[in-house]
Amino acid sequence: MRLDSYVQGAWSVPGGDWRAIRSAVTGEVVAEVAGGTLAMDAVLDYARRVGGPALRRLTFHQRADLLKRLAQHLNAHREVLYRLSFDTGATRSDHLIDIDGGIGTLFVFASKAKRELPDATFLLDGPVEALSKGGSFVGRHILTSLHGAAIHINAYNFPCWGLLEKLAPAILAGMPVVTKPATVTAYVAHALVRLIDESGLLPPGALQCVVGPTGDLFDHLTGQDVVSFTGSAATAEMLQRHPVVAHEAVRFVAERDSLNAAILGPDAAPGTPEFDLFVKEVAREMTVKAGQKCTAIRRALAPRAHLPAVIAVLSQRLAGVTVGDPRLDGVRMGPVVGLDQRRDVLARVEALKTEADLVFGDPDRVTVEGADARTGAFLPPLLLHCPDPIRAERVHSVEAFGPVCTVMPYADPDEAVALVRRGGGSLVASLYSHDPEAAFALAHGLAPFHGRLHLVDRDCAREQTGHGSPLPHMVHGGPGRAGGGEELGGLRAMHHGMQRTALQGSPAMIARLTGAWTKGAPEIVADAHPFRCHFEDLEIGRSFHSRERVVTLEDVEHFAHFTGDTFYAHMSEEAVRGHPFFPGRVAHGYLLLSFAAGLFVDPDPGPVLANYGLDSLRFLKPLQPGEAIRVRLTAKQKSPRNAQYGEVRWDVEIQTGGGETAATYELLTMNAMRGS
Amino acid sequence: MRLDSYVQGAWSVPGGDWRAIRSAVTGEVVAEVAGGTLAMDAVLDYARRVGGPALRRLTFHQRADLLKRLAQHLNAHREVLYRLSFDTGATRSDHLIDIDGGIGTLFVFASKAKRELPDATFLLDGPVEALSKGGSFVGRHILTSLHGAAIHINAYNFPCWGLLEKLAPAILAGMPVVTKPATVTAYVAHALVRLIDESGLLPPGALQCVVGPTGDLFDHLTGQDVVSFTGSAATAEMLQRHPVVAHEAVRFVAERDSLNAAILGPDAAPGTPEFDLFVKEVAREMTVKAGQKCTAIRRALAPRAHLPAVIAVLSQRLAGVTVGDPRLDGVRMGPVVGLDQRRDVLARVEALKTEADLVFGDPDRVTVEGADARTGAFLPPLLLHCPDPIRAERVHSVEAFGPVCTVMPYADPDEAVALVRRGGGSLVASLYSHDPEAAFALAHGLAPFHGRLHLVDRDCAREQTGHGSPLPHMVHGGPGRAGGGEELGGLRAMHHGMQRTALQGSPAMIARLTGAWTKGAPEIVADAHPFRCHFEDLEIGRSFHSRERVVTLEDVEHFAHFTGDTFYAHMSEEAVRGHPFFPGRVAHGYLLLSFAAGLFVDPDPGPVLANYGLDSLRFLKPLQPGEAIRVRLTAKQKSPRNAQYGEVRWDVEIQTGGGETAATYELLTMNAMRGS
Repeated sequence: MRLDSYVQGAWSVPGGDWRAIRSAVTGEVVAEVAGGTLAMDAVLDYARRVGGPALRRLTFHQRADLLKRLAQHLNAHREVLYRLSFDTGATRSDHLIDIDGGIGTLFVFASKAKRELPDATFLLDGPVEALSKGGSFVGRHILTSLHGAAIHINAYNFPCWGLLEKLAPAILAGMPVVTKPATVTAYVAHALVRLIDESGLLPPGALQCVVGPTGDLFDHLTGQDVVSFTGSAATAEMLQRHPVVAHEAVRFVAERDSLNAAILGPDAAPGTPEFDLFVKEVAREMTVKAGQKCTAIRRALAPRAHLPAVIAVLSQRLAGVTVGDPRLDGVRMGPVVGLDQRRDVLARVEALKTEADLVFGDPDRVTVEGADARTGAFLPPLLLHCPDPIRAERVHSVEAFGPVCTVMPYADPDEAVALVRRGGGSLVASLYSHDPEAAFALAHGLAPFHGRLHLVDRDCAREQTGHGSPLPHMVHGGPGRAGGGEELGGLRAMHHGMQRTALQGSPAMIARLTGAWTKGAPEIVADAHPFRCHFEDLEIGRSFHSRERVVTLEDVEHFAHFTGDTFYAHMSEEAVRGHPFFPGRVAHGYLLLSFAAGLFVDPDPGPVLANYGLDSLRFLKPLQPGEAIRVRLTAKQKSPRNAQYGEVRWDVEIQTGGGETAATYELLTMNAMRGS
Repeated sequence: MRLDSYVQGAWSVPGGDWRAIRSAVTGEVVAEVAGGTLAMDAVLDYARRVGGPALRRLTFHQRADLLKRLAQHLNAHREVLYRLSFDTGATRSDHLIDIDGGIGTLFVFASKAKRELPDATFLLDGPVEALSKGGSFVGRHILTSLHGAAIHINAYNFPCWGLLEKLAPAILAGMPVVTKPATVTAYVAHALVRLIDESGLLPPGALQCVVGPTGDLFDHLTGQDVVSFTGSAATAEMLQRHPVVAHEAVRFVAERDSLNAAILGPDAAPGTPEFDLFVKEVAREMTVKAGQKCTAIRRALAPRAHLPAVIAVLSQRLAGVTVGDPRLDGVRMGPVVGLDQRRDVLARVEALKTEADLVFGDPDRVTVEGADARTGAFLPPLLLHCPDPIRAERVHSVEAFGPVCTVMPYADPDEAVALVRRGGGSLVASLYSHDPEAAFALAHGLAPFHGRLHLVDRDCAREQTGHGSPLPHMVHGGPGRAGGGEELGGLRAMHHGMQRTALQGSPAMIARLTGAWTKGAPEIVADAHPFRCHFEDLEIGRSFHSRERVVTLEDVEHFAHFTGDTFYAHMSEEAVRGHPFFPGRVAHGYLLLSFAAGLFVDPDPGPVLANYGLDSLRFLKPLQPGEAIRVRLTAKQKSPRNAQYGEVRWDVEIQTGGGETAATYELLTMNAMRGS
């Protein structure tokens, strides 16, 4: 199959010779890629001119809907991807990570966006900042979509997940994507993009896919573009040092080499559930995707005393791994992606062997089920043992990107931390311990050097998702050798495609620009109670000012006995004497809140369906019996939920009769839409 | 004066010839800098080995105290800095920006840290993420201090502010600083570092200062280090492309060239306050620091019809600017920093003159008060007019870093946005308009290309802080040409020196690692009520389970009439029929809240001083009269406030008699310390 590129809304092929892509399993040609390049300035131009504006016109909720429907479409057609994916060497359970995992990531981003984002085209970031004494000058930050393209350069190991986990946050951010799959597994990514194209869901220009060389793409980047790279450190460095990246200050996010560690806790002796979980996880990480995961465990650390047991049990477990054609049911591990990769892994194992002994597996003697070991890129799991990891260098720096792991001893937790840090920054480390105190010291020692720490104990054993699986909710990336990038982490990932801008001006101006009323901005006071407004009709800034009500001592005593809240500060002048905050007996905060509701509520059926919550309540000035209160209620923000109703956030201030602020909070109501 | 460097806790001088630094005013030698370099690996080692651990041992509040005391010390000695600063060309009012502004930044960071940060050594980032159906596996992000050094490379124009605005967030983040002042004004930064050293406030290794060349500093950087650069794009690019930056994934934050714009709004005709504010601000930005500010207005856009008026009034205003020795009282503008800078500005003005006409000022005819125009680096304000900014290139790309600005017309708001964007990304743009609708379109069009938008109208005229003044609360930086960096922005700036790490594991483990109880983590239930515990004695996870209380119809009716909250959903089965959320008459949310307080309160005087607030209240299941409630209250987080008391955040859940969750919230109490 000859793979074309999907650019400028059409499938097209650049010139140049066709180069073969071979099956990892059989060595046969499964696809071909053209050696020429397309006009990259035109690709970028199409993204910026057509894709960007189309996406930016949609609200976050509309973009989330797109992702959800795309996920549903892919889910219905995933067998197409499974079928092709075997030839990359992936087994059925590897497909769950790459294909189902990628689709799952779309679902998570879609649902997070619906729940956590407003139905708008920009985001507010942080609170209103008071920038002046008089209150006439305030500031607030917003995030808006960049006007460039998101360039996604993916690794070969996860052609689907890699494409989709970068696509989802970019689309939500309103950034059109130009994706560049790794050539050796491009036929899977190509099929995925075909499915996306066939779905007709994404607006034109929202996704383009360049199969084969990217030519002069980088020459045309600007500071509005973002590059997200996953792959080797060597390629990442080359791209990052492209003159245009510094000249234009192009955002550059990299995930690259990582010598991830797993640490058997000091408490996790043989016989404990954590010991078993450790061994199981190390074996799993060695064999899933034939160890070709940037997050795989490359260094397994155990207390010196437990190291022989670890090697013994782990070897036993690895001995049970069947290597062969990933299509076969009993096969647990397929080949690596190709013969070049196999050679590369073996060369690195040789480098590691200068510091470590091979204690399990022989690359020259691998039993292969259902395929030919001479033409497929098969390797057995290879376990090394490094007896002196303090003096060793290569076990901490050479990443053999295959089914390879080195076990090593540590003397005490400080030494374990020091050894793991020798990796120079990693994507993930995992710890197997049921002792929170030991875990605290280890985790806080490792955190600055890691993007993720995975803590395994008997309590989460059944539900934990594994050392090597980045979750859409949690950040994926790591400092130093791992590239310094950060992907996923829930909606944090959108920030790569958005610009944070400080807005500063008068409250009226900031309220209009952010769509959120703030104190000092104009209030709209009308005859009708604001609770009479349907969602669509309610203006931001619409206010209600209540009448006054005196809070009597009788009220306080009555409320105390009715609710049972007879806290001494409400009940006794004597007991409260000398209190650091209270000048004498004070009214209950909840009494003020309840009276406030009584003052602002509009009792008859109307568009306000319910008060469903309250945020940021602060009691600022205690109220003494005999003092009066009144309430101001102002529509602050609106966010539609569905065709029937939307959420309104009200800014509420309870004032004393003397005009001081007794309490402030934000009230949440659900307001019906006009037609509903 | 020969300037030494402050490294490894001592003042020392590298070898090499001494090079002269000359006064901008007189051309006389005011200081000398050695041409040799110090051992940079030793400087970094000292920062990492001595400074980092010392800072990381302190809590955020302790670091904030350091900054506050440092600010007080500098404030008391600022005359020393004023005296030296005149020779850089700075006037008394320029000192307010550089010296007082720098000290003010320390104060703001100190006070923000005390108010907004916990008294801890790490930060929580975002909420607990549910990662499993059963709840046994959860995630949360933390931020911990990097273990490297913060390298601060500063521009010559703000030797004090530049040093201090980078120092404050780095110290808060727990990062030791190596600061490198620009040579031409290094004598001011040197005096500042002397004052800091003399204060004895910072721990050893927390600050080092390299005057003169930095030698092979970059060769020794790692992924735990951060570089923050302010200066020219050419130098920034050179540094950013250093091989070690990409190889080690060193964080690199840059502020560089910026063609900032000011836009006279379509509504701001001559005669409006906004017109006057625009003219005043453009003139001010041209003359403050003799226009040597990365944030200065380089492009002033006005509606075509108003351009002649702008040029006339602006020229008139500029004609009143007295240039001369900044020590003199009547002088409004001093020289630029030196003769080289003067030459450079003039060369760029020549470049601009190919597209724009000089309409005010003549570089060959400048009247200088109290100094010699031949030996000092004096320039008059130079105003250019570009009649065709759409076809022009240089007015959007050549930054004349002196008292230079180009005015240009625009036809309509879309054209204004397009012209401003031609700057390729800027630090700041300002808009002078009293029309929020016009401002909305302009601001949202400009936001993706700017780090800051400053909106000026009559309402904030008196208190607004000016186009060119970065505020510690708001981000400073910009995309593209401006370098893609981000400084300040309140405590966001700390993130540069901290690593975000995803923690995932069992609730018990995550609670221990984050110091915050989360649902599913163990509860500690004791005989004594948790409200009997002093702040120090209260364990995270300490829980109270209340008895049950039935909420009767009588209670609901009574509460309604007592508070005045007679909302129909509480009062009438008939009115509530068909309601989208309520199955029938329901109890008031505030009634549940009040009864809950009655159920958990411990009435007698004790360590709990007050319930001072409540966060994130959500009513999840409506309660019908006749149903019972009970409450669980669990100590979630603690944060000391002072020697007398601290804040306790409680996780509260109101359950129905059937065990369903009716409401959740976080309750805030102030708890007394044991000894108080």
